[in-house]
Amino acid sequence: MAIILYDLAGADGRRFSSNCWRTRMALAHKGLDCETVPTPFTAIGRIGDGSFKTIPVIEDNGTWVGDSWTIAEYLDETYPDRPPVLAGSDGRQHALFVQNWARSQISPLVMTMIVEDIYAQLCPEDKDYFRVSRSERLGRDIAGVQEGREARLPELRQRLEPMRLVLNETPYLGGELPTYSDYVALSPFIWARTVSPLALVEPGDPVHAWFQRVLDLYDGLARSNPGYDW
Amino acid sequence: MAIILYDLAGADGRRFSSNCWRTRMALAHKGLDCETVPTPFTAIGRIGDGSFKTIPVIEDNGTWVGDSWTIAEYLDETYPDRPPVLAGSDGRQHALFVQNWARSQISPLVMTMIVEDIYAQLCPEDKDYFRVSRSERLGRDIAGVQEGREARLPELRQRLEPMRLVLNETPYLGGELPTYSDYVALSPFIWARTVSPLALVEPGDPVHAWFQRVLDLYDGLARSNPGYDW
Repeated sequence: MAIILYDLAGADGRRFSSNCWRTRMALAHKGLDCETVPTPFTAIGRIGDGSFKTIPVIEDNGTWVGDSWTIAEYLDETYPDRPPVLAGSDGRQHALFVQNWARSQISPLVMTMIVEDIYAQLCPEDKDYFRVSRSERLGRDIAGVQEGREARLPELRQRLEPMRLVLNETPYLGGELPTYSDYVALSPFIWARTVSPLALVEPGDPVHAWFQRVLDLYDGLARSNPGYDW
Repeated sequence: MAIILYDLAGADGRRFSSNCWRTRMALAHKGLDCETVPTPFTAIGRIGDGSFKTIPVIEDNGTWVGDSWTIAEYLDETYPDRPPVLAGSDGRQHALFVQNWARSQISPLVMTMIVEDIYAQLCPEDKDYFRVSRSERLGRDIAGVQEGREARLPELRQRLEPMRLVLNETPYLGGELPTYSDYVALSPFIWARTVSPLALVEPGDPVHAWFQRVLDLYDGLARSNPGYDW
Protein backbone atom coordinates (compact mmCIF):
# COMPACT_ATOMS: atom_id res chain seq x y z
CA MET A 1 0.00 0.00 0.00
CA ALA A 2 1.34 3.41 -0.92
CA ILE A 3 2.36 5.81 1.81
CA ILE A 4 0.09 8.86 1.98
CA LEU A 5 1.87 12.22 2.10
CA TYR A 6 -0.02 15.35 3.11
CA ASP A 7 1.72 17.87 0.93
CA LEU A 8 1.37 21.66 1.01
CA ALA A 9 -0.15 22.94 -2.24
CA GLY A 10 -0.78 26.26 -3.94
CA ALA A 11 -3.89 27.39 -5.80
CA ASP A 12 -3.07 25.42 -8.96
CA GLY A 13 -1.86 22.39 -7.01
CA ARG A 14 1.84 23.17 -7.27
CA ARG A 15 3.88 21.89 -4.34
CA PHE A 16 6.07 24.65 -2.90
CA SER A 17 6.86 23.41 0.59
CA SER A 18 10.58 22.98 1.16
CA ASN A 19 9.96 20.61 4.08
CA CYS A 20 7.47 18.44 2.20
CA TRP A 21 9.98 18.07 -0.61
CA ARG A 22 12.50 16.59 1.82
CA THR A 23 10.01 13.83 2.56
CA ARG A 24 9.06 13.41 -1.07
CA MET A 25 12.73 12.91 -2.01
CA ALA A 26 13.35 10.62 0.96
CA LEU A 27 10.45 8.37 -0.08
CA ALA A 28 11.77 8.23 -3.66
CA HIS A 29 15.29 7.55 -2.36
CA LYS A 30 13.96 4.51 -0.52
CA GLY A 31 11.89 3.42 -3.50
CA LEU A 32 8.64 3.63 -1.56
CA ASP A 33 5.38 4.35 -3.37
CA CYS A 34 3.69 7.53 -2.31
CA GLU A 35 0.36 9.22 -2.95
CA THR A 36 0.17 12.90 -2.14
CA VAL A 37 -2.82 14.73 -0.76
CA PRO A 38 -2.65 18.40 -1.79
CA THR A 39 -3.21 20.34 1.44
CA PRO A 40 -3.57 24.11 1.99
CA PHE A 41 -2.09 25.63 5.17
CA THR A 42 -5.53 26.15 6.61
CA ALA A 43 -6.41 22.44 6.28
CA ILE A 44 -3.40 21.14 8.28
CA GLY A 45 -5.43 21.09 11.49
CA ARG A 46 -7.85 18.59 9.95
CA ILE A 47 -5.19 15.96 9.14
CA GLY A 48 -5.48 12.69 11.08
CA ASP A 49 -6.49 13.22 14.70
CA GLY A 50 -6.10 17.00 14.32
CA SER A 51 -2.92 17.21 16.40
CA PHE A 52 -0.52 18.17 13.59
CA LYS A 53 0.56 21.81 13.36
CA THR A 54 2.87 21.50 10.33
CA ILE A 55 3.36 19.34 7.30
CA PRO A 56 4.72 17.02 5.97
CA VAL A 57 2.68 14.34 7.65
CA ILE A 58 2.65 10.78 6.36
CA GLU A 59 0.29 7.92 6.93
CA ASP A 60 1.88 4.53 6.47
CA ASN A 61 -0.72 1.81 6.74
CA GLY A 62 -2.29 3.28 9.88
CA THR A 63 0.87 4.82 11.37
CA TRP A 64 0.90 8.62 11.37
CA VAL A 65 4.20 10.51 11.48
CA GLY A 66 4.87 14.27 11.28
CA ASP A 67 8.00 16.46 10.95
CA SER A 68 10.37 15.85 8.04
CA TRP A 69 13.33 14.80 10.21
CA THR A 70 11.22 12.38 12.28
CA ILE A 71 9.79 10.96 9.06
CA ALA A 72 13.32 10.34 7.69
CA GLU A 73 14.23 8.49 10.90
CA TYR A 74 10.97 6.53 10.75
CA LEU A 75 11.63 5.46 7.15
CA ASP A 76 15.16 4.25 7.91
CA GLU A 77 13.96 2.36 11.00
CA THR A 78 10.88 0.87 9.37
CA TYR A 79 12.49 -0.02 6.04
CA PRO A 80 16.08 -1.00 6.95
CA ASP A 81 16.45 -3.21 3.86
CA ARG A 82 15.97 -0.27 1.53
CA PRO A 83 18.74 2.30 0.80
CA PRO A 84 19.43 4.31 3.95
CA VAL A 85 18.56 7.96 3.55
CA LEU A 86 19.93 9.45 6.78
CA ALA A 87 22.85 7.11 7.36
CA GLY A 88 23.71 6.98 3.66
CA SER A 89 26.74 9.27 3.66
CA ASP A 90 29.81 9.01 5.84
CA GLY A 91 31.92 11.15 8.10
CA ARG A 92 34.17 12.10 5.24
CA GLN A 93 31.44 14.06 3.45
CA HIS A 94 30.35 15.43 6.81
CA ALA A 95 33.83 16.73 7.64
CA LEU A 96 34.24 18.06 4.10
CA PHE A 97 31.13 20.21 4.46
CA VAL A 98 32.01 21.48 7.92
CA GLN A 99 35.58 22.23 6.82
CA ASN A 100 34.37 24.24 3.84
CA TRP A 101 31.84 26.03 6.01
CA ALA A 102 34.49 26.99 8.59
CA ARG A 103 36.94 27.97 5.88
CA SER A 104 34.57 30.17 3.86
CA GLN A 105 32.13 31.55 6.47
CA ILE A 106 33.96 31.65 9.80
CA SER A 107 37.75 31.91 9.47
CA PRO A 108 37.85 34.92 7.09
CA LEU A 109 35.72 36.92 9.55
CA VAL A 110 37.81 35.76 12.53
CA MET A 111 40.93 36.78 10.61
CA THR A 112 39.76 40.41 10.69
CA MET A 113 39.54 40.12 14.49
CA ILE A 114 42.90 38.54 15.27
CA VAL A 115 45.38 39.28 12.48
CA GLU A 116 47.29 41.91 14.47
CA ASP A 117 47.27 39.64 17.54
CA ILE A 118 48.90 36.91 15.45
CA TYR A 119 51.48 39.37 14.14
CA ALA A 120 52.43 40.32 17.71
CA GLN A 121 53.18 36.71 18.62
CA LEU A 122 55.26 35.74 15.57
CA CYS A 123 58.92 34.78 15.52
CA PRO A 124 60.92 37.86 14.42
CA GLU A 125 61.97 36.22 11.15
CA ASP A 126 58.29 35.63 10.22
CA LYS A 127 57.02 39.18 10.64
CA ASP A 128 57.80 40.54 7.18
CA TYR A 129 56.49 37.45 5.39
CA PHE A 130 53.26 37.51 7.38
CA ARG A 131 52.64 41.24 7.01
CA VAL A 132 53.11 41.18 3.24
CA SER A 133 51.14 37.97 2.54
CA ARG A 134 48.21 38.81 4.83
CA SER A 135 47.97 42.43 3.72
CA GLU A 136 47.74 41.12 0.17
CA ARG A 137 45.01 38.66 1.15
CA LEU A 138 43.03 41.35 2.98
CA GLY A 139 43.55 44.00 0.32
CA ARG A 140 44.95 46.48 2.88
CA ASP A 141 47.73 46.72 5.41
CA ILE A 142 47.04 44.60 8.48
CA ALA A 143 47.56 47.58 10.81
CA GLY A 144 44.17 48.68 12.09
CA VAL A 145 42.22 45.74 10.63
CA GLN A 146 41.11 44.63 14.09
CA GLU A 147 39.58 48.03 14.83
CA GLY A 148 35.92 47.78 15.84
CA ARG A 149 36.13 44.01 16.08
CA GLU A 150 33.68 43.81 19.00
CA ALA A 151 31.03 45.19 16.65
CA ARG A 152 31.58 42.21 14.36
CA LEU A 153 30.99 39.61 17.08
CA PRO A 154 27.17 39.51 16.65
CA GLU A 155 27.63 38.70 12.95
CA LEU A 156 30.15 35.97 13.82
CA ARG A 157 27.84 34.47 16.43
CA GLN A 158 24.94 34.49 13.99
CA ARG A 159 27.09 32.62 11.48
CA LEU A 160 27.81 29.99 14.15
CA GLU A 161 24.11 29.13 14.34
CA PRO A 162 24.35 25.87 12.30
CA MET A 163 26.87 24.52 14.84
CA ARG A 164 24.82 25.77 17.76
CA LEU A 165 21.67 24.03 16.53
CA VAL A 166 23.52 20.72 16.14
CA LEU A 167 25.10 21.10 19.59
CA ASN A 168 21.64 21.55 21.08
CA GLU A 169 21.08 17.93 20.09
CA THR A 170 24.43 16.16 20.45
CA PRO A 171 27.57 16.96 22.50
CA TYR A 172 29.83 16.95 19.44
CA LEU A 173 29.29 17.67 15.76
CA GLY A 174 30.28 14.03 15.27
CA GLY A 175 27.51 12.88 17.62
CA GLU A 176 28.13 11.34 21.04
CA LEU A 177 31.86 11.30 20.31
CA PRO A 178 34.09 13.81 18.51
CA THR A 179 35.22 13.22 14.94
CA TYR A 180 37.20 15.12 12.35
CA SER A 181 34.14 17.35 11.84
CA ASP A 182 34.78 18.70 15.35
CA TYR A 183 38.48 19.21 14.69
CA VAL A 184 37.87 21.23 11.54
CA ALA A 185 35.26 23.31 13.36
CA LEU A 186 37.79 23.78 16.17
CA SER A 187 40.20 25.51 13.81
CA PRO A 188 39.05 29.14 14.08
CA PHE A 189 38.51 28.85 17.83
CA ILE A 190 41.88 27.38 18.81
CA TRP A 191 43.56 29.78 16.38
CA ALA A 192 41.95 32.77 18.12
CA ARG A 193 42.36 31.44 21.66
CA THR A 194 46.11 31.02 21.17
CA VAL A 195 46.79 34.62 20.23
CA SER A 196 43.86 36.82 21.23
CA PRO A 197 42.05 37.93 24.39
CA LEU A 198 38.89 38.53 22.33
CA ALA A 199 36.27 35.94 23.30
CA LEU A 200 34.65 34.66 20.11
CA VAL A 201 32.00 32.90 22.19
CA GLU A 202 30.90 33.31 25.78
CA PRO A 203 29.59 31.12 28.60
CA GLY A 204 25.95 30.24 28.09
CA ASP A 205 26.44 29.65 24.36
CA PRO A 206 26.32 25.94 23.42
CA VAL A 207 29.27 26.63 21.09
CA HIS A 208 31.29 27.85 24.10
CA ALA A 209 30.41 24.70 26.07
CA TRP A 210 31.45 22.55 23.08
CA PHE A 211 34.73 24.46 22.78
CA GLN A 212 35.53 23.81 26.47
CA ARG A 213 34.68 20.13 25.91
CA VAL A 214 37.06 19.89 22.96
CA LEU A 215 39.82 21.69 24.88
CA ASP A 216 39.52 18.97 27.54
CA LEU A 217 39.82 16.03 25.13
CA TYR A 218 42.88 13.79 25.28
CA ASP A 219 44.00 14.92 28.74
CA GLY A 220 43.49 18.57 27.87
CA LEU A 221 45.78 18.49 24.84
CA ALA A 222 44.51 21.72 23.26
CA ARG A 223 43.99 23.44 26.61
CA SER A 224 47.65 22.89 27.51
CA ASN A 225 48.70 25.13 24.61
CA PRO A 226 49.44 28.66 25.86
CA GLY A 227 46.53 30.94 25.12
CA TYR A 228 43.79 33.13 26.52
CA ASP A 229 41.11 31.56 28.68
CA TRP A 230 37.71 32.55 27.41
CA MET B 1 58.23 5.36 16.69
CA ALA B 2 56.44 8.64 17.22
CA ILE B 3 55.08 10.53 14.23
CA ILE B 4 56.89 13.84 13.70
CA LEU B 5 54.61 16.86 13.20
CA TYR B 6 56.04 20.08 11.80
CA ASP B 7 53.92 22.56 13.70
CA LEU B 8 53.71 26.31 13.17
CA ALA B 9 55.00 28.18 16.22
CA GLY B 10 55.10 31.75 17.52
CA ALA B 11 57.99 33.55 19.24
CA ASP B 12 57.43 31.85 22.60
CA GLY B 13 56.71 28.47 21.04
CA ARG B 14 52.92 28.71 21.21
CA ARG B 15 51.12 26.80 18.48
CA PHE B 16 48.59 29.02 16.75
CA SER B 17 48.01 27.27 13.42
CA SER B 18 44.40 26.26 12.93
CA ASN B 19 45.39 23.68 10.32
CA CYS B 20 48.16 22.12 12.41
CA TRP B 21 45.69 21.73 15.28
CA ARG B 22 43.45 19.61 13.04
CA THR B 23 46.33 17.17 12.61
CA ARG B 24 47.31 17.33 16.28
CA MET B 25 43.76 16.40 17.29
CA ALA B 26 43.49 13.70 14.60
CA LEU B 27 46.69 12.06 15.87
CA ALA B 28 45.38 12.14 19.46
CA HIS B 29 42.01 10.80 18.28
CA LYS B 30 43.78 7.78 16.80
CA GLY B 31 45.98 7.38 19.87
CA LEU B 32 49.18 7.85 17.89
CA ASP B 33 52.28 9.24 19.58
CA CYS B 34 53.48 12.49 18.14
CA GLU B 35 56.51 14.73 18.55
CA THR B 36 56.15 18.27 17.31
CA VAL B 37 58.87 20.36 15.70
CA PRO B 38 58.13 24.06 16.29
CA THR B 39 58.42 25.67 12.86
CA PRO B 40 58.22 29.36 11.85
CA PHE B 41 56.55 30.24 8.54
CA THR B 42 59.91 31.09 7.02
CA ALA B 43 61.33 27.63 7.77
CA ILE B 44 58.57 25.68 5.98
CA GLY B 45 60.62 25.55 2.77
CA ARG B 46 63.37 23.62 4.58
CA ILE B 47 61.11 20.75 5.71
CA GLY B 48 61.91 17.34 4.17
CA ASP B 49 62.85 17.62 0.49
CA GLY B 50 61.92 21.30 0.43
CA SER B 51 58.74 20.78 -1.62
CA PHE B 52 56.21 21.71 1.07
CA LYS B 53 54.60 25.14 0.89
CA THR B 54 52.34 24.86 3.94
CA ILE B 55 52.14 23.01 7.21
CA PRO B 56 51.11 20.69 8.83
CA VAL B 57 53.56 18.16 7.44
CA ILE B 58 54.10 14.82 9.14
CA GLU B 59 56.87 12.29 8.86
CA ASP B 60 55.80 8.79 9.74
CA ASN B 61 58.77 6.46 9.77
CA GLY B 62 60.14 7.77 6.47
CA THR B 63 56.79 8.65 4.84
CA TRP B 64 56.20 12.38 4.39
CA VAL B 65 52.66 13.73 4.09
CA GLY B 66 51.44 17.34 3.86
CA ASP B 67 48.02 19.07 3.96
CA SER B 68 45.75 18.46 6.94
CA TRP B 69 42.99 16.74 4.94
CA THR B 70 45.45 14.44 3.15
CA ILE B 71 47.04 13.62 6.50
CA ALA B 72 43.65 12.66 7.96
CA GLU B 73 43.04 10.33 4.99
CA TYR B 74 46.55 8.90 5.35
CA LEU B 75 46.03 8.16 9.04
CA ASP B 76 42.73 6.36 8.46
CA GLU B 77 44.21 4.32 5.62
CA THR B 78 47.48 3.50 7.38
CA TYR B 79 45.99 2.78 10.80
CA PRO B 80 42.60 1.19 10.04
CA ASP B 81 42.53 -0.68 13.36
CA ARG B 82 42.53 2.56 15.35
CA PRO B 83 39.42 4.75 15.78
CA PRO B 84 38.46 6.26 12.43
CA VAL B 85 38.76 10.02 12.40
CA LEU B 86 37.22 10.90 9.01
CA ALA B 87 34.70 8.08 8.73
CA GLY B 88 33.85 8.29 12.44
CA SER B 89 30.50 10.05 12.20
CA ASP B 90 27.52 9.09 10.10
CA GLY B 91 25.14 10.61 7.63
CA ARG B 92 22.73 11.53 10.37
CA GLN B 93 25.12 14.08 11.89
CA HIS B 94 26.03 15.20 8.37
CA ALA B 95 22.41 15.85 7.42
CA LEU B 96 21.77 17.50 10.79
CA PHE B 97 24.53 20.05 10.16
CA VAL B 98 23.49 20.74 6.57
CA GLN B 99 19.84 21.08 7.61
CA ASN B 100 20.72 23.59 10.32
CA TRP B 101 22.96 25.46 7.93
CA ALA B 102 20.24 25.70 5.28
CA ARG B 103 17.63 26.63 7.88
CA SER B 104 19.64 29.38 9.60
CA GLN B 105 21.86 30.79 6.83
CA ILE B 106 20.06 30.22 3.53
CA SER B 107 16.27 29.95 3.86
CA PRO B 108 15.71 33.18 5.86
CA LEU B 109 17.54 35.16 3.17
CA VAL B 110 15.67 33.35 0.38
CA MET B 111 12.43 34.12 2.21
CA THR B 112 13.03 37.85 1.66
CA MET B 113 13.31 37.15 -2.06
CA ILE B 114 10.22 35.00 -2.62
CA VAL B 115 7.64 35.69 0.09
CA GLU B 116 5.38 37.75 -2.19
CA ASP B 117 5.77 35.17 -4.95
CA ILE B 118 4.55 32.50 -2.54
CA TYR B 119 1.61 34.67 -1.52
CA ALA B 120 0.58 35.05 -5.15
CA GLN B 121 0.37 31.28 -5.61
CA LEU B 122 -1.55 30.39 -2.46
CA CYS B 123 -5.02 28.90 -2.27
CA PRO B 124 -7.46 31.76 -1.52
CA GLU B 125 -8.30 30.37 1.94
CA ASP B 126 -4.57 30.44 2.90
CA LYS B 127 -3.85 34.07 2.04
CA ASP B 128 -4.85 35.70 5.33
CA TYR B 129 -3.11 33.08 7.46
CA PHE B 130 0.09 33.38 5.44
CA ARG B 131 0.15 37.18 5.38
CA VAL B 132 -0.33 37.48 9.14
CA SER B 133 2.09 34.71 10.18
CA ARG B 134 4.88 35.70 7.77
CA SER B 135 4.56 39.42 8.45
CA GLU B 136 4.97 38.58 12.13
CA ARG B 137 8.04 36.46 11.41
CA LEU B 138 9.61 39.19 9.26
CA GLY B 139 8.70 42.02 11.59
CA ARG B 140 6.94 43.92 8.80
CA ASP B 141 4.17 43.47 6.26
CA ILE B 142 5.20 41.15 3.47
CA ALA B 143 4.26 43.73 0.81
CA GLY B 144 7.46 45.15 -0.63
CA VAL B 145 9.80 42.72 1.14
CA GLN B 146 11.09 41.41 -2.18
CA GLU B 147 12.09 44.89 -3.33
CA GLY B 148 15.75 45.06 -4.32
CA ARG B 149 16.12 41.30 -4.14
CA GLU B 150 18.60 41.12 -7.03
CA ALA B 151 20.99 43.15 -4.91
CA ARG B 152 20.88 40.42 -2.25
CA LEU B 153 21.88 37.64 -4.67
CA PRO B 154 25.66 38.15 -4.28
CA GLU B 155 25.30 37.72 -0.49
CA LEU B 156 23.23 34.57 -1.00
CA ARG B 157 25.74 33.14 -3.45
CA GLN B 158 28.59 33.86 -1.05
CA ARG B 159 26.73 32.01 1.69
CA LEU B 160 26.43 29.01 -0.64
CA GLU B 161 30.22 28.69 -0.77
CA PRO B 162 30.45 25.69 1.64
CA MET B 163 28.19 23.70 -0.69
CA ARG B 164 30.03 24.89 -3.77
CA LEU B 165 33.40 23.79 -2.39
CA VAL B 166 32.07 20.31 -1.59
CA LEU B 167 30.48 20.05 -5.04
CA ASN B 168 33.85 20.83 -6.61
CA GLU B 169 34.94 17.46 -5.20
CA THR B 170 31.88 15.19 -5.32
CA PRO B 171 28.68 15.26 -7.42
CA TYR B 172 26.42 15.26 -4.36
CA LEU B 173 26.81 16.50 -0.79
CA GLY B 174 26.38 12.82 0.14
CA GLY B 175 29.32 11.84 -2.11
CA GLU B 176 28.94 9.82 -5.31
CA LEU B 177 25.26 9.33 -4.54
CA PRO B 178 22.66 11.66 -3.03
CA THR B 179 21.60 11.33 0.60
CA TYR B 180 19.35 13.21 2.96
CA SER B 181 22.03 15.91 3.19
CA ASP B 182 21.22 16.71 -0.45
CA TYR B 183 17.48 16.76 0.17
CA VAL B 184 17.76 19.20 3.07
CA ALA B 185 20.05 21.41 0.98
CA LEU B 186 17.50 21.17 -1.85
CA SER B 187 14.84 22.79 0.33
CA PRO B 188 15.44 26.49 -0.37
CA PHE B 189 16.04 25.85 -4.08
CA ILE B 190 12.94 23.80 -4.82
CA TRP B 191 10.90 26.19 -2.67
CA ALA B 192 12.05 29.16 -4.77
CA ARG B 193 11.86 27.37 -8.12
CA THR B 194 8.24 26.46 -7.54
CA VAL B 195 7.02 30.01 -7.04
CA SER B 196 9.58 32.48 -8.33
CA PRO B 197 11.22 33.46 -11.62
CA LEU B 198 14.25 34.76 -9.68
CA ALA B 199 17.24 32.50 -10.36
CA LEU B 200 19.01 31.86 -7.06
CA VAL B 201 21.91 30.30 -8.95
CA GLU B 202 22.95 30.44 -12.57
CA PRO B 203 24.60 28.16 -15.14
CA GLY B 204 28.34 27.87 -14.55
CA ASP B 205 27.92 27.68 -10.78
CA PRO B 206 28.57 24.15 -9.40
CA VAL B 207 25.54 24.67 -7.16
CA HIS B 208 23.39 25.20 -10.26
CA ALA B 209 24.75 22.01 -11.83
CA TRP B 210 24.00 20.10 -8.62
CA PHE B 211 20.45 21.52 -8.52
CA GLN B 212 19.82 20.32 -12.08
CA ARG B 213 21.20 16.90 -11.12
CA VAL B 214 18.86 16.67 -8.13
CA LEU B 215 15.87 17.80 -10.22
CA ASP B 216 16.62 14.86 -12.54
CA LEU B 217 16.72 12.22 -9.80
CA TYR B 218 14.03 9.53 -9.65
CA ASP B 219 12.79 10.08 -13.19
CA GLY B 220 12.73 13.84 -12.78
CA LEU B 221 10.45 13.78 -9.75
CA ALA B 222 11.22 17.31 -8.56
CA ARG B 223 11.50 18.70 -12.09
CA SER B 224 7.97 17.50 -12.89
CA ASN B 225 6.58 19.89 -10.25
CA PRO B 226 5.33 23.08 -11.90
CA GLY B 227 7.87 25.84 -11.49
CA TYR B 228 10.24 28.24 -13.15
CA ASP B 229 13.15 26.84 -15.15
CA TRP B 230 16.36 28.45 -14.01
